[in-house]
Amino acid sequence: MDDLKNRALKFHEDNLGKLKVATKVAVNDEDDLTLAYSPGVAYPCLEIAKNSDDVYKYTNKSNFVAIVSNGTAVLGLGNIGARASIPVMEGKSVLFKEFGGVDGFPICLDTEDPEEIIKTVVRLEPVFGGINLEDIKAPECFLIEDRLKQELPIPVFHDDQHGTAIITLGALINSLKIVDKEFKDLKVVINGAGAAGVSLARIIIKKGAKNVILLDSRGAIYKGRKNLNISKEQMAEITNPNLEKGDLAEICKNADVFLGVSVADVLTEDMVKSMANNPIVFAMANPNPEIDPKLALKGGAKIVGTGRSDYPNQINNVLAFPGIFRGAMDVMAREINMEMKLAAADALAELVSEAELNSEYVIPKPFDTRVGPHVAAAVAQAAVETGVARINLSYEEAFKRATEKIRGE
Amino acid sequence: MDDLKNRALKFHEDNLGKLKVATKVAVNDEDDLTLAYSPGVAYPCLEIAKNSDDVYKYTNKSNFVAIVSNGTAVLGLGNIGARASIPVMEGKSVLFKEFGGVDGFPICLDTEDPEEIIKTVVRLEPVFGGINLEDIKAPECFLIEDRLKQELPIPVFHDDQHGTAIITLGALINSLKIVDKEFKDLKVVINGAGAAGVSLARIIIKKGAKNVILLDSRGAIYKGRKNLNISKEQMAEITNPNLEKGDLAEICKNADVFLGVSVADVLTEDMVKSMANNPIVFAMANPNPEIDPKLALKGGAKIVGTGRSDYPNQINNVLAFPGIFRGAMDVMAREINMEMKLAAADALAELVSEAELNSEYVIPKPFDTRVGPHVAAAVAQAAVETGVARINLSYEEAFKRATEKIRGE
Repeated sequence: MDDLKNRALKFHEDNLGKLKVATKVAVNDEDDLTLAYSPGVAYPCLEIAKNSDDVYKYTNKSNFVAIVSNGTAVLGLGNIGARASIPVMEGKSVLFKEFGGVDGFPICLDTEDPEEIIKTVVRLEPVFGGINLEDIKAPECFLIEDRLKQELPIPVFHDDQHGTAIITLGALINSLKIVDKEFKDLKVVINGAGAAGVSLARIIIKKGAKNVILLDSRGAIYKGRKNLNISKEQMAEITNPNLEKGDLAEICKNADVFLGVSVADVLTEDMVKSMANNPIVFAMANPNPEIDPKLALKGGAKIVGTGRSDYPNQINNVLAFPGIFRGAMDVMAREINMEMKLAAADALAELVSEAELNSEYVIPKPFDTRVGPHVAAAVAQAAVETGVARINLSYEEAFKRATEKIRGE
Repeated sequence: MDDLKNRALKFHEDNLGKLKVATKVAVNDEDDLTLAYSPGVAYPCLEIAKNSDDVYKYTNKSNFVAIVSNGTAVLGLGNIGARASIPVMEGKSVLFKEFGGVDGFPICLDTEDPEEIIKTVVRLEPVFGGINLEDIKAPECFLIEDRLKQELPIPVFHDDQHGTAIITLGALINSLKIVDKEFKDLKVVINGAGAAGVSLARIIIKKGAKNVILLDSRGAIYKGRKNLNISKEQMAEITNPNLEKGDLAEICKNADVFLGVSVADVLTEDMVKSMANNPIVFAMANPNPEIDPKLALKGGAKIVGTGRSDYPNQINNVLAFPGIFRGAMDVMAREINMEMKLAAADALAELVSEAELNSEYVIPKPFDTRVGPHVAAAVAQAAVETGVARINLSYEEAFKRATEKIRGE
């Protein structure tokens, strides 16, 4: 690990960070200056002043995404502050570019007050075509996302919530084909009731699951439990219909699916043994999973996924957010709604063909170049169908546009 | 002009704006991903959490400048709003890159409230190594700049105020050599008491001028005049020592220098005739100057400058801000102070050799590639000498670093 530390520090120091601003136009002589700046630039300004939607026509708004964080929940490092979060947000921008052809810019805000974050982002919106919220702690992240979705006419997406949820759903869709089960019959245990856990529960319920149980560090969340924050209280209303109580060992009994978005080593081999037949275990804590995959398999797990690249079935966020923003922005969507998220999960699942599908390959790999355009086109199509797109593109048109943008054409 | 309009609109539409975000690192395989993002990225995050100055070491902070506007005073177009200002701010970023090797990012804020702008920029600061304020109307721009300078440990510079002032001073230093006059003996008339006029007056007084008179649309500003806003009241304290009153025609009598930062065609041939011997006329209103240069020469002007590229002596802002930020950021200066501004003006003046100097060449041309590094090194040196630099570079080191950065090395 010391080797990784030294290499990572050198990598960042040698390059003085990972990002730069580049120009799409050349300025080699007076005439270029006249067009790019004064006096020519006055004309697009005046067009936008007349018709504010022309900002999409004459500026880079359609491809700029603000990567907004305040550094209160960075990776597994906790609240390290806005400055210390910048390497992650620059990294996110690198991934946006490489996997989605999106121009993501880090906006790291020196405040923990949700109202200040909301106001700041609302004021910043003119330049950006989308807002990616990142590494903001729960429960503030829910309020911030909800309010920004209401106030802004552009996509707002908290990746920690929805990115993991969408990819996990994609992997789960394919896993159920292997074990021949249906969402409506599942008992799903979600360990972790923060940003990712809550979104996971919502999307899986939307997909048809009836019995989803969320756990926090105090055990199962049920209606009537004391000391629940507002988001957990809301979840108690729509999860755990049988009001099961107890710790993880108790709740895992007879479960079909374990989804971990918590911390290392909390799931034991015995707990896996207590699950229903052919259990599915996605242990996604980073960098160390809720259970070592070898132990999970020993306990009888049929399919095991983690967040790591050195095991099969990596639930890696780069599978979702770049294509989702690509598709949403290519049709100038007003938002990223549930249908668009479900379409992204389906698109990911579809990329694993029936012939290839097996317990060690239920989700595409991060460097599968089909992922970005495929997810983008599916998301664009769902945006058009749900009436939130300002531009009407067919699936084929959206696929072609996304492919070109990701290639940098 | 219709041709320029069509070309400028097409130029912006074809490119969908002028900017993009680019990466300084490649992500081609799992190992790259490991360094640029999780888990490797955690290490620079932790270093910054321990020592916040390490943000300069592991992120692009040392080269990011926020180009902040709210669109209330855009070019000569007035208050057209944040959205309509974006093409100008993207253009400014292009110039930052081409002439200074600086990564400028447009931050166009949807608010006219100075307190909201101040708060927003303070929260945004972690990512940025400098703040360039742009096209924010007076008098709010003075308050915003003053407060941000107090609250932020990085350079804050309102280009509309200081950029024009610095270049004009550079041109004036050289012009005085031709007419053989000294600052202390001059009567200087500044028509326009907004952002640029106020800064012009301050820097020329700092350079030794004793008799500077500012005019607004109501005529000369003098101590005791009614209905002065706070910034004009402050200027009345340090300008117009003889309390001259009257309109531009009145005040121009016996003036040595006319500096126009106002509107087209307000200076007449007769007014130029009424000036002292060998008058200097810089008519910098854009796109049309305060007087047609031909008329000014006919009226007896010895040296004429404008903001336009189609006349001699173009006072073009690209001569100053890219090199100023380059130099300030290369030594991690805490601010851009008066000494650094004066150093920039001197550096510009020095680039015109005694042999080349003539009434049609008192200031370098915008595409003179010597300008950026020369201004940067002079500014860096002044920062070191006045104790506001966090890095101690010699003139030669600063010159070398600026040259490399501007070339994109």
